[in-house]
Amino acid sequence: MNAKTLTIAFLAAILAFPAAAQDPYAGKREGWLQTAEAAKPALHLTTVKPVAIVQAVRDEHAFQGWKYEPVGKPEDLKERNFKELETVTLDFGKHFVGYFSFHTKTLSRCLDAPVRLKFTFGEVPAELNTPFDPWGKDRLGRAWMQDETITLTRLDEWVRIPRRIAFRYVKIEMMGWPGAGYDFAVDDFTFTAQSTAGEVQTSLEPGCPERIRKIHDVGVETLRECMQTVYEDGPKRDQRLWIGDMYLEALANRYSFRNFDLTKRCLYLFAALAREDGVLFAPVIEDPVPHPQYGTYITPYALLWNVALLDYLEDTGDTAAADDLFPVAKVQIAEGLSFVDERGIFDVAKKPSWLFIDHRAGLDVSASMQGVMIFALQKTYELARRLGREKEVAQYPALIKKMTQAGRKYLYDKKSGLVLSGPDAQVSMMSQSWLTIAGVLTSKESARAIRTALQTEGCVMPGTPYGTHYLVEAMLCSGMADEARAYVEDYWGGMVDKGADTFWEAYDPTDDLYSPYGFHPLNSACHAWSCTPVYFIHKYPEVFQR
Amino acid sequence: MNAKTLTIAFLAAILAFPAAAQDPYAGKREGWLQTAEAAKPALHLTTVKPVAIVQAVRDEHAFQGWKYEPVGKPEDLKERNFKELETVTLDFGKHFVGYFSFHTKTLSRCLDAPVRLKFTFGEVPAELNTPFDPWGKDRLGRAWMQDETITLTRLDEWVRIPRRIAFRYVKIEMMGWPGAGYDFAVDDFTFTAQSTAGEVQTSLEPGCPERIRKIHDVGVETLRECMQTVYEDGPKRDQRLWIGDMYLEALANRYSFRNFDLTKRCLYLFAALAREDGVLFAPVIEDPVPHPQYGTYITPYALLWNVALLDYLEDTGDTAAADDLFPVAKVQIAEGLSFVDERGIFDVAKKPSWLFIDHRAGLDVSASMQGVMIFALQKTYELARRLGREKEVAQYPALIKKMTQAGRKYLYDKKSGLVLSGPDAQVSMMSQSWLTIAGVLTSKESARAIRTALQTEGCVMPGTPYGTHYLVEAMLCSGMADEARAYVEDYWGGMVDKGADTFWEAYDPTDDLYSPYGFHPLNSACHAWSCTPVYFIHKYPEVFQR
Repeated sequence: MNAKTLTIAFLAAILAFPAAAQDPYAGKREGWLQTAEAAKPALHLTTVKPVAIVQAVRDEHAFQGWKYEPVGKPEDLKERNFKELETVTLDFGKHFVGYFSFHTKTLSRCLDAPVRLKFTFGEVPAELNTPFDPWGKDRLGRAWMQDETITLTRLDEWVRIPRRIAFRYVKIEMMGWPGAGYDFAVDDFTFTAQSTAGEVQTSLEPGCPERIRKIHDVGVETLRECMQTVYEDGPKRDQRLWIGDMYLEALANRYSFRNFDLTKRCLYLFAALAREDGVLFAPVIEDPVPHPQYGTYITPYALLWNVALLDYLEDTGDTAAADDLFPVAKVQIAEGLSFVDERGIFDVAKKPSWLFIDHRAGLDVSASMQGVMIFALQKTYELARRLGREKEVAQYPALIKKMTQAGRKYLYDKKSGLVLSGPDAQVSMMSQSWLTIAGVLTSKESARAIRTALQTEGCVMPGTPYGTHYLVEAMLCSGMADEARAYVEDYWGGMVDKGADTFWEAYDPTDDLYSPYGFHPLNSACHAWSCTPVYFIHKYPEVFQR
Repeated sequence: MNAKTLTIAFLAAILAFPAAAQDPYAGKREGWLQTAEAAKPALHLTTVKPVAIVQAVRDEHAFQGWKYEPVGKPEDLKERNFKELETVTLDFGKHFVGYFSFHTKTLSRCLDAPVRLKFTFGEVPAELNTPFDPWGKDRLGRAWMQDETITLTRLDEWVRIPRRIAFRYVKIEMMGWPGAGYDFAVDDFTFTAQSTAGEVQTSLEPGCPERIRKIHDVGVETLRECMQTVYEDGPKRDQRLWIGDMYLEALANRYSFRNFDLTKRCLYLFAALAREDGVLFAPVIEDPVPHPQYGTYITPYALLWNVALLDYLEDTGDTAAADDLFPVAKVQIAEGLSFVDERGIFDVAKKPSWLFIDHRAGLDVSASMQGVMIFALQKTYELARRLGREKEVAQYPALIKKMTQAGRKYLYDKKSGLVLSGPDAQVSMMSQSWLTIAGVLTSKESARAIRTALQTEGCVMPGTPYGTHYLVEAMLCSGMADEARAYVEDYWGGMVDKGADTFWEAYDPTDDLYSPYGFHPLNSACHAWSCTPVYFIHKYPEVFQR
């Protein structure tokens, strides 16, 4: 069976693939899958070696309480009896994604018993110094942790660890010895790093401040690591294409690698694998054949897919693709609008899906959803305009107007100058940000809302770089250039100060151990949605680079 | 690099391969390695499936305290949610050697997190129900235990566990789940069993008693499992060619598979890889390229290699090979004789090597070594005679006579009728047996010695089937047909009564937990040196089959 037949068979078996009668994309899906496959960029492979033997040091001032200090050179291991060494930790100097290989060497006699080695890979020091077990029963899967135990029945050869790894550090421990009088070394380590990103196509202004440059570079590395055969959310966890991450990665890609084939591939994958009524699944998984993560819908993500399609058209002028996929954009809008009530308010009580806006316990997303819906209407109308298909969406301008007015009426409190969300009139940065981005508030009102919220006790702050992105975007929409820059320098710069090589999935400046998953080693320390300083710094050079 | 170049480079690097000047096999070794390679028999592969889902039951009457009871059919697992099952144990119905594969199946949605499964393979029930850890620091290697943990990053495909397995039972445990709402089954299991043995070429007499037939069949299975690309000692542990095991396997092979290519290959491997002075290493390891287990010499094994060469010649008439290897036989005799003192006694105090005769703490091997040396002289002289090369070993008959007389004088106590070994005049079955086999005692004296020793309090009994083989052989040399048969029925039949599918490396009828390694799960439960009932039953049909 070839890949295509396999895909169809697999989807048919698992998904009970849509009957053509009700499928708005009938007759299109197979072609879209082929287009996605044809657009897949090649992986660039590079071979890297460890740069230091390191030792873990407990340090309350270090990020999550641990740091590594160099204690030797990897070359020193070539003749070291691993039986005496028992354990060693290596630093590869920066974050890499790919495949780990090692070589063993007989030092005396031969191998009497098979040798067992345990490899624990980590993106950050604490990940290798926090016991994983016993594992909480309701946690995410234990196997996200990158510890692999390998039995060697022979020496003097290369062994490759089968799973793909995302890491900077690896700890190697001997779990089974080769017997008394039999000595061996683990004498070589090679990592085959991979990414589809390619070379950076842009540059910063010569006078760009060093701190901004550093934040930019860490953002670029983050994006590079996440650019695999799809835009992954995090190469350690959870290694898949989410619309929300893709949207932000594509923004950063415009200003760095400019690898638009990858964007095209991802847009098409979502479309081809949509639900039978045309609604997009939020994540897509590539292996063993591309398939959606069944049952996972995120309405705000589906709406942002439309924005990503417009951005793609703007970047590439590829009207053929945009035209091809425009019907998908219309379906997402129609689906979103079905939850808008007669007042013109997006009614979250109808529970259309998981309404992910940010990771923060108790965040009320009513106001944010109003903003996302209006923003998507605006961008989708712009897309129609560029394709000369305004007539198909002639009702959008009136809807934008109605929802904007409803937003001002029901969600904006003129007196306090704040957007209030939900039955408890919650103040959150997400609410202020999204009604700003959607243009519900004037620029002046937006700036006031954001500033007031920042000073409001109990205001729900962003929990992730994903949420923080929209806050900074909102500041930049509201003429708050200095505050936006300060926020970037403080928030993303804070990660750099704490030693980040790549930006993290979750970051609370006040709590290094914060985790949306109840266990900080599960956090992804290289996460796509945190790469957007690349976009801000390039898009607003006057704000950031001078 | 081809295999040969690799071998030479490897040996040169590790062994500091013999300088031609002192090497008695100069110019021969590479050709011998090639001959060994050319004689390698093909592996016969068969695909097998589990026959039952089983449950472990603690039972003090069962071997080592555990047995399995069937509780279901493997087909029932095809749709079973492994997340709910969590663990399952399968019985493959008999012992197999080869490679284990399994297939997974998505039951609902897809895979959210990688899945981690732990497979523990065991030859006997107690092996899967005895905790391995914490592992004693001075034990043999932990990785002999066949537990392997596999991380799956995708489902709906076949996965093969890399290491070769020897087992009948496998326990599968879920160590990392795929996430709430994501369900999967482990829906197929396949084992690719391998052996070079081929088909049995012999048959028992129609009237052969059932008990003898059963013992015979278990012996054949034991041999089949150990016949890989060399005669292995045990396919679980330690997976290599030892001279002592080869000698007994070749005896059983004469009366069953008659696959003499394997014998030829093994004889040549030992010769090609001998020490620089021509002395044979006791074990040879095939991977990554054939090499000896450096530093491990066993003089009685080296001497038995000569006997195996004679047997090979008798079975095949391959005088070319025997002629080719005869110089090696002479070197082993010369090496052995260098430890014989002027009285004609093999002097163990000279500590020529590890003098392995049997696993029994405190066993004195002085008398046994006298027997092995004489036996090897006899058989090597017979070999020379058949090759027409008696002149080269013209001194052997006189040496045999001298050592026989010395044995009678210094080791045999006419009064008690016992062979006494070492400074403490130890009585052991090994001493009686070896001086019997060597013909130092008359048949009548032998029978008396064996019977008396069996009734002597404190007599050191055999610790293994290896030692027991020589005792039964001695009985058969001494006209003790009934006792020999009773011993086989009692000893090997005892293993059958305790559920053996294959005969064990170590067996003490009075102590199921006996282990030469301080931990009974380390014992090999399918061990070549215990397969010799096949030889006895066929060679002496009048004793065993009627």
